[in-house]
Amino acid sequence: MEQKFPEAFAEFTEVCKTLENHYRDMQDMEFTVEHGKLFMLQTRNGKRTAQAALQIACDLVDEGMRTPEEAVAMIDPRNLDTLLHPQFDAKALKASEPMGKGLGASPGAACGKVVFTADDAVAWNDKGEKVVLVRLETSPEDITGMKAAQGILTVRGGMTSHAAVVARGMGTCCVSGCGDINMDEENKRFTLAGKEFHEGDYISIDGSTGNIYDGIIPTVDATIAGTFGRIMGWADEFRTLKVRTNADTPADAKKARELGAEGIGLCRTEHMFFEEDRIAAFREMICSDTVEEREAALDKILPYQQNDFEALYEALEGCPVTIRFLDPPLHEFVPTEEEDIKKLADAQGKSVEDIKAIIASLHEFNPMMGHRGLRLAVTYPEIAKMQTKAVIRAAINVQKAHADWTVAPEIMIPLSCDTKELKYVKDMVVATADAEIAAAGIEMKYEVGTMIEIPRAALTADEIAKEAEFFCFGTNDLTQMTYGFSRDDAGKFLDAYYDAKIFENDPFAKLDQTGVGQLMKMAVANGKATRPELHCGICGEHGGDPSSVEFCHEIGLDYVSCSPFRVPIARLAAAQAAINSK
Amino acid sequence: MEQKFPEAFAEFTEVCKTLENHYRDMQDMEFTVEHGKLFMLQTRNGKRTAQAALQIACDLVDEGMRTPEEAVAMIDPRNLDTLLHPQFDAKALKASEPMGKGLGASPGAACGKVVFTADDAVAWNDKGEKVVLVRLETSPEDITGMKAAQGILTVRGGMTSHAAVVARGMGTCCVSGCGDINMDEENKRFTLAGKEFHEGDYISIDGSTGNIYDGIIPTVDATIAGTFGRIMGWADEFRTLKVRTNADTPADAKKARELGAEGIGLCRTEHMFFEEDRIAAFREMICSDTVEEREAALDKILPYQQNDFEALYEALEGCPVTIRFLDPPLHEFVPTEEEDIKKLADAQGKSVEDIKAIIASLHEFNPMMGHRGLRLAVTYPEIAKMQTKAVIRAAINVQKAHADWTVAPEIMIPLSCDTKELKYVKDMVVATADAEIAAAGIEMKYEVGTMIEIPRAALTADEIAKEAEFFCFGTNDLTQMTYGFSRDDAGKFLDAYYDAKIFENDPFAKLDQTGVGQLMKMAVANGKATRPELHCGICGEHGGDPSSVEFCHEIGLDYVSCSPFRVPIARLAAAQAAINSK
Repeated sequence: MEQKFPEAFAEFTEVCKTLENHYRDMQDMEFTVEHGKLFMLQTRNGKRTAQAALQIACDLVDEGMRTPEEAVAMIDPRNLDTLLHPQFDAKALKASEPMGKGLGASPGAACGKVVFTADDAVAWNDKGEKVVLVRLETSPEDITGMKAAQGILTVRGGMTSHAAVVARGMGTCCVSGCGDINMDEENKRFTLAGKEFHEGDYISIDGSTGNIYDGIIPTVDATIAGTFGRIMGWADEFRTLKVRTNADTPADAKKARELGAEGIGLCRTEHMFFEEDRIAAFREMICSDTVEEREAALDKILPYQQNDFEALYEALEGCPVTIRFLDPPLHEFVPTEEEDIKKLADAQGKSVEDIKAIIASLHEFNPMMGHRGLRLAVTYPEIAKMQTKAVIRAAINVQKAHADWTVAPEIMIPLSCDTKELKYVKDMVVATADAEIAAAGIEMKYEVGTMIEIPRAALTADEIAKEAEFFCFGTNDLTQMTYGFSRDDAGKFLDAYYDAKIFENDPFAKLDQTGVGQLMKMAVANGKATRPELHCGICGEHGGDPSSVEFCHEIGLDYVSCSPFRVPIARLAAAQAAINSK
Repeated sequence: MEQKFPEAFAEFTEVCKTLENHYRDMQDMEFTVEHGKLFMLQTRNGKRTAQAALQIACDLVDEGMRTPEEAVAMIDPRNLDTLLHPQFDAKALKASEPMGKGLGASPGAACGKVVFTADDAVAWNDKGEKVVLVRLETSPEDITGMKAAQGILTVRGGMTSHAAVVARGMGTCCVSGCGDINMDEENKRFTLAGKEFHEGDYISIDGSTGNIYDGIIPTVDATIAGTFGRIMGWADEFRTLKVRTNADTPADAKKARELGAEGIGLCRTEHMFFEEDRIAAFREMICSDTVEEREAALDKILPYQQNDFEALYEALEGCPVTIRFLDPPLHEFVPTEEEDIKKLADAQGKSVEDIKAIIASLHEFNPMMGHRGLRLAVTYPEIAKMQTKAVIRAAINVQKAHADWTVAPEIMIPLSCDTKELKYVKDMVVATADAEIAAAGIEMKYEVGTMIEIPRAALTADEIAKEAEFFCFGTNDLTQMTYGFSRDDAGKFLDAYYDAKIFENDPFAKLDQTGVGQLMKMAVANGKATRPELHCGICGEHGGDPSSVEFCHEIGLDYVSCSPFRVPIARLAAAQAAINSK
């Protein structure tokens, strides 16, 4: 153009400068040259990849066109998601054709050998093989296998199925609900697109698009380039909301710290119970006939828990760590396979019938609304006592090893609905903790708080705050109870709700500010009226959703806690919320 | 005494008069006479049976010692319960020794022959036999059998188990949770107190004390004596709160009208689906592949429903009738026995595998929080349309037959949580109803309202009231969702809560004014702010609990609705609430 229409080109260069100066952003312009004369047809802010958006924002700051504050406000936090996970090599992807499609349930790309069970995933991973775990659906027993896999593919389940939620939490790629797969788990094979796949065959999956590919497509790791770091640095200057992470393992905690997390907002201790040695002791606890037997079984778990917690405190280097006590109902821990039941019976010196009777007695009609959370601590105080000992002993050891850190455990009691109930459990936690601290002969501060995840807890927050030293909103459960539907079952009717335009968003992904948010606002205000120093956070999946983060800023929460891979998103969203509310 | 200590006796007679005049109530006095001199030791208001309490209150009014208002305030409404059910003959009872004990789950006494299935209860009852239905636990499929029985005895389940709740609703005697029974349902026998019982053996049960007796103890029917009627008449003069009844059948409705009910506050239409012809058509609907097939199946149910409703309108003679649309999840209607599944498959021209797949697809993890209530109307609009036609056609026919009555149907949509959701269903109800009324060429007013039983409905009542013409608080479900526990599962931990003094009352029996009540108060205030003419009621079990009735009066409800046998209790409690708040 410079050679063919030198005048028009010179003019165009000027116009570009004028327009980009005017809009203070990269422009996507249409123009034409007729008889050597330049005609500008239209201009708009250019679309860009996340990586390009960061680069442009930094360039605009360097060119003096934007302030850092403006640069932070320009980036759509939702776009960052793609930057934080491995992606397929672009060239290899172009040459590939998907053979099927499910729901893009947890972003990122993965390739590996097909395995059909969680145990196989662990075993193959230990041998250095990269695997993709393919299952009808997943359950809590599959956690270790899910961790060992590069990606997870399920036949059943929606965006809020167990596989999807856990995978997002882990930052692991997941494609869920691919109903086209004809699955034969028993014989370790499935068919898709007319081809039969066996254990060890290669597949590749894309958790952003939901695409499934035959064979290997190589992946490239996410890079946190310099521009990303600059923008995050600016964001941290503007935000007032702290960002913590949901992490159950030192590895997750370290990853989150790298991504800027300032503490752990939720450590789910139950995930620690599923590893082999512990599940045996935990099942022994469940099968116990007396308090003494239960205590003996719990004593076996105590050192494991204490080690877990020590590793977490080490990884956090003195940053706050909130540990939630046992939450799920006990039936999630009992075996379901005949063979495992037999093993348990033998280990317990009981008959298979006895074990089956115990399992049957644990059955619940509505497990979500059943015998779980602190209700377990009311009926089996010895569980909460064991967990208190593990937390405090771990904290004491780490404090002793690092005199320059301040290790101040935050113990979180789940599912409270009444202040007397919370007091009952808190009193026993405090008595146990104080005895441990006194025995160690050291000074240590700790806090006991509660999750606010039951409507009644939010409604009686003024009373609850008399006992709770902090609130953490468990908005997954709070959303379920407030709407009266469980996310495991809502899939059967939510599509009809979207079709009829009754709901515009999935309330489990984007916080319902009208209903659930009203309860949160009420709880923060009434809780702080009782106890002005009460600190409040959120640790549901909403903690990593930008619009929900903005709401949390507005109602005066102190922190949001989210999956490690969503920490940068939350940091940016928190900064934007602070900037917007100026 | 008159002969031995004439002076002391004369003095005593005077003192009695003085004391009873002072306390204006029958006195329970202790005295002694020493050396001919009277010493009064103590006095207090005398304890009395319910029957005596009514008599004393009337006497005091007749003697001019109390006003009718004071007489009404004197009676403890909870005592009336015993007056409203059959009791054992006192002499025969004295001669008997209980052989076991369960929970007194629904008051009254019953004797009859043991049967083990609902079908047997119906068959034996049809032959004129009085039966007691003995089961491990009951389920909705047992309803007709429970109705046919004099009493119900279960091995499992607490005060809020299916058996207990349904029996209280029916006013049928029930003893639940007698764990001492060794049950062998398959072979129709059980052992208790070392004796084996078979079908046809006589037992007697007392639903107030929970006692179980071997053999027959004759019962005497409750009598509503003249004093009872007088007190109720006075109560009606003072109360402002209306009292309706929960009734699903004309027989229940008539009984309730005799006991003073001023309308039906809750007719649960699903109970009507379990009778033999209807359940077949309803299952056909569930198994349908297309909307047309579903509509064809529903067309078979329509005339039955219309007849049911006509009979209800006839029984109510122009008093208001609130009909709630289908509420439970569809899986409650599918067969569970292999034989019944086979029958259904044959009837539907499908394979047993197909039917099993349909049943499996209806499985829910948390049925209480699943695909039920108006969610069914969103996914299957044809169900709500059929029910609307049945209601309106019935009302039109009864209106035509009784020109002096005003038949104005109240259609109640269950389980709403969002105003757009309610509007979606309401719009289709209104379109269907208006078409029916136009086709009949008559004038008819009707109302469409909703149950408030989900916390979010209460929290967004200002919006919900834009669509709802009335609110009815379903406090059973609202209590479950607000506390985050289901009453089917809470039995496993509630005892520990009572032992630890965390809870003083069963929140399903006595309304939790702090949490659930706060939601109700908020909903009434915000709902009436949007729609001043909004009428509000309650139809949970709390509608028959005196302290809960008082609370309903205080927050400005227009009516309470309760089981027929609790109507007099509610009338009295409502009067006392009005008197107390003067």
